[in-house]
Amino acid sequence: MKNVKGILFDIGGVLYVGESPVPGAVETIEMLQGRYRMRFVTNSTRRPPETIRQKLIRMGFSIGSEQLFSALGAARQIVEEAGGRAVTILTEEAEKYFGELHCIDTSSPFVVVGDAGENFNYPRLNRAFRTLIHGARLIAAAENRYFKDADGELSMDAGGFVKALEYAAGVEATVVGKPSPEFFHQALHSMGVKPEEAIMVGDDIESDIAGAQRAGIRAVLVRTGKFRPQDLEGAIFPDAVIDSVAELPKLLEV
Amino acid sequence: MKNVKGILFDIGGVLYVGESPVPGAVETIEMLQGRYRMRFVTNSTRRPPETIRQKLIRMGFSIGSEQLFSALGAARQIVEEAGGRAVTILTEEAEKYFGELHCIDTSSPFVVVGDAGENFNYPRLNRAFRTLIHGARLIAAAENRYFKDADGELSMDAGGFVKALEYAAGVEATVVGKPSPEFFHQALHSMGVKPEEAIMVGDDIESDIAGAQRAGIRAVLVRTGKFRPQDLEGAIFPDAVIDSVAELPKLLEV
Repeated sequence: MKNVKGILFDIGGVLYVGESPVPGAVETIEMLQGRYRMRFVTNSTRRPPETIRQKLIRMGFSIGSEQLFSALGAARQIVEEAGGRAVTILTEEAEKYFGELHCIDTSSPFVVVGDAGENFNYPRLNRAFRTLIHGARLIAAAENRYFKDADGELSMDAGGFVKALEYAAGVEATVVGKPSPEFFHQALHSMGVKPEEAIMVGDDIESDIAGAQRAGIRAVLVRTGKFRPQDLEGAIFPDAVIDSVAELPKLLEV
Repeated sequence: MKNVKGILFDIGGVLYVGESPVPGAVETIEMLQGRYRMRFVTNSTRRPPETIRQKLIRMGFSIGSEQLFSALGAARQIVEEAGGRAVTILTEEAEKYFGELHCIDTSSPFVVVGDAGENFNYPRLNRAFRTLIHGARLIAAAENRYFKDADGELSMDAGGFVKALEYAAGVEATVVGKPSPEFFHQALHSMGVKPEEAIMVGDDIESDIAGAQRAGIRAVLVRTGKFRPQDLEGAIFPDAVIDSVAELPKLLEV
């Protein structure tokens, strides 16, 4: 791949799977950090951005806090900039990150949905629904369909629950994470790289690959994380497919 | 309204709201039972058909068991006729009605979703999701958006959760209750009435009114139950709108 100045990396399923770094990933990132401008863009909304970065550092990755773009952070920013508060469906930890911006008042101007795991329960979903029919704006920190769970099987991600609320309340969500083009462009802008000078490396055929391509960015699919062979049988064609992020230097000929 | 031989009634929100019959409804049904062929068609999937009928009888309605068409009954019939078993998302009571047909094996050929209330939780939804990605067929006993809850506010119905599973697993549900034309036609067929000789009386602008009209049946909207004034501002036009079912005799000029 030629003319690459900047690289966007998905995190979960690309740099690590479960609790272990992908073999060779730490060394690959270390080596590329010196040669490319890089950003790490994640739809992982279970934890605040800084917690995600600390986990990466413990695994051996060196990543600066300005390099991390999190969908949860982007959602929080929208609520904060509007001076509003939000009914949220998030993990306890992500809810704490919202702090004062979080509330349970169904007349709130925002509903924020992230990957909430066991917190996707009827009382929370119904409170969000009632807030929406009172006129709140629905902010989806992500709309991924599924993720590779700790037991090795796929599990439902936030996307389905966003669709549930959209359908029940007759509203349309604003998606702030991948595959939103704004999210990719914010990350590129922060490092002064144009879409045609960048590549995106991810394991999600829709959010990462189709999303980046719609944002004008070449996309490299890795066969780790949530990758399934049938991902390559659909209508989305990655610009390259590699076994893991450790093969990226070869692809970039560095 | 002319040339009416048969009447289909929705139950919840039309005959009763909460735990009380709509004023005049008992007398109206009694009077019409002698003059028209009638069926009661419900997407209420929280309880088995016979339990619904017993509740109506306790309220004073006289309705024969052959007159009741329930979406839950129709869903059960599909699983039974296929000789399969189903992972279900239902209330405890509805699950019991499935008896031996219910299981928790993610290699089952069917997933059945009804209005499960508090049973819409992550473990159950995720089990259904996993069953679907293993190839099961999704049977939606209903796809209503919301219902009028005991506290007088609207609450999320099964529809959103069906959409959540459809989106996450990339499948399409077979809807067996209203607004499925087959469901309306089964009820009409059982009493030997043609669509153009029938009317449907309901409080749900989509399932009851648009559904009946698509099945070739004239549709009467009541202003009780889940009715909201904005229901009349959309693209669905009932053939008549009445304050409650008690006004039906006047509309029929009996």
